[in-house]
Amino acid sequence: MTNPTAAMIVIGDEILSGRTRDSNMNHLARELTKTGVDLKEVRVVSDEREAIVSAVQALSAAYTHVFTSGGIGPTHDDITADCVAAAFGVHIDIREDAYQLLHAHYDRRGSEFNAARQRMARIPDGAALIDNPVSIAPGFVLENVYVMAGVPSVFEAMVASVLPTLTGGAPLLSQTLRIERGEGEIAGPLSALAADFPDLSIGSYPYQQDGAYGANIVIRGQDGARIDAAMSRLNDLFPG
Amino acid sequence: MTNPTAAMIVIGDEILSGRTRDSNMNHLARELTKTGVDLKEVRVVSDEREAIVSAVQALSAAYTHVFTSGGIGPTHDDITADCVAAAFGVHIDIREDAYQLLHAHYDRRGSEFNAARQRMARIPDGAALIDNPVSIAPGFVLENVYVMAGVPSVFEAMVASVLPTLTGGAPLLSQTLRIERGEGEIAGPLSALAADFPDLSIGSYPYQQDGAYGANIVIRGQDGARIDAAMSRLNDLFPG
Repeated sequence: MTNPTAAMIVIGDEILSGRTRDSNMNHLARELTKTGVDLKEVRVVSDEREAIVSAVQALSAAYTHVFTSGGIGPTHDDITADCVAAAFGVHIDIREDAYQLLHAHYDRRGSEFNAARQRMARIPDGAALIDNPVSIAPGFVLENVYVMAGVPSVFEAMVASVLPTLTGGAPLLSQTLRIERGEGEIAGPLSALAADFPDLSIGSYPYQQDGAYGANIVIRGQDGARIDAAMSRLNDLFPG
Repeated sequence: MTNPTAAMIVIGDEILSGRTRDSNMNHLARELTKTGVDLKEVRVVSDEREAIVSAVQALSAAYTHVFTSGGIGPTHDDITADCVAAAFGVHIDIREDAYQLLHAHYDRRGSEFNAARQRMARIPDGAALIDNPVSIAPGFVLENVYVMAGVPSVFEAMVASVLPTLTGGAPLLSQTLRIERGEGEIAGPLSALAADFPDLSIGSYPYQQDGAYGANIVIRGQDGARIDAAMSRLNDLFPG
């Protein structure tokens, strides 16, 4: 069985200018791996309509699920919801249930529910809301695109709301062996091992520490017994 | 004057599985911003030939420069050089100057210069080498694509080799104001400010700290005097 696939779109000039380090990609990647959904591609795009619309169209056509991060707040540079609606050619406007959620929230806080905040109730036609227990303003899912906030605590809460609704495959299992030799010494035998286990993914991730070279060899797959077999061969090849 | 544009391709299943956090994107983003090159898009793709080839073709056609990170070591999963050659339809083989560099390096270290290490001398026809002062195995530039290592210390050294060769535009300047109010309260005036300064990019990046909402407003542009003017208006709008 092959797993469902996924892509992510990170929206934000602040990532591309280097001002902010994205952490949502790593969080989503780890959660999807546990769920048995294969994250195949991530795109970081700027806060520009063209860029967001074309990324949504390309990735929603190519993968089972698409997750977006960022651009759904109340300010003028938050254009993700409108872009996702445009990508699917559907109408977008303030929706009653989202409006009421937000209205009640700002009433409780004693804050004005002004035009900017009302923008966060703009939801494309046909979308379902994604719960936001942190700051109320909902995300939404339209077709196979899950639209979530960029603030990490909110993004993570939305991911937690969404993941139980996905049908995953077998979770990706992995084992790692740290080998304190340069990749150049281990590449030959490793390549032969990879050829003998075509059902597994065998990756080599080099490091340099205190002037010494080494590599972490990670064997990934869905069948734990096969991973055990490959690890046992790997341990025989590089003892100690 | 508009700045040259750039895209980045991060190659590696270890990022997509969440096992490793990428740090090269943030490093490159900061360095390009200082140089006056606008990073417009980043794609993280898996160690699969199709994925790498099509990302190289799409992005090299769309942007002034493309930078890649990862997949140029000696192991079987290092396929970037071959994929970049394929993307441009050029031949790739072991090249004499790269071979000699590596040969001398392993001789000095007293290590065998075996077939796996010799693979790192595979350079597409027509490429120029990128210096690697850290671990010798060179990167290369073919057409407008700069192919660099994924290990952060090596990636950063290669970026330092490459950046002085680029013709940048005016460096992107920025100023930030931290406003301790929810985005919903500041969005209206902020939108009016953005409309009055169409030559600047005004971004709002919300945060939540100890239960309080706030936002960092970042004003970016190439003209320092214009940024000063917009910041002064912003300070008047949200004093203290």
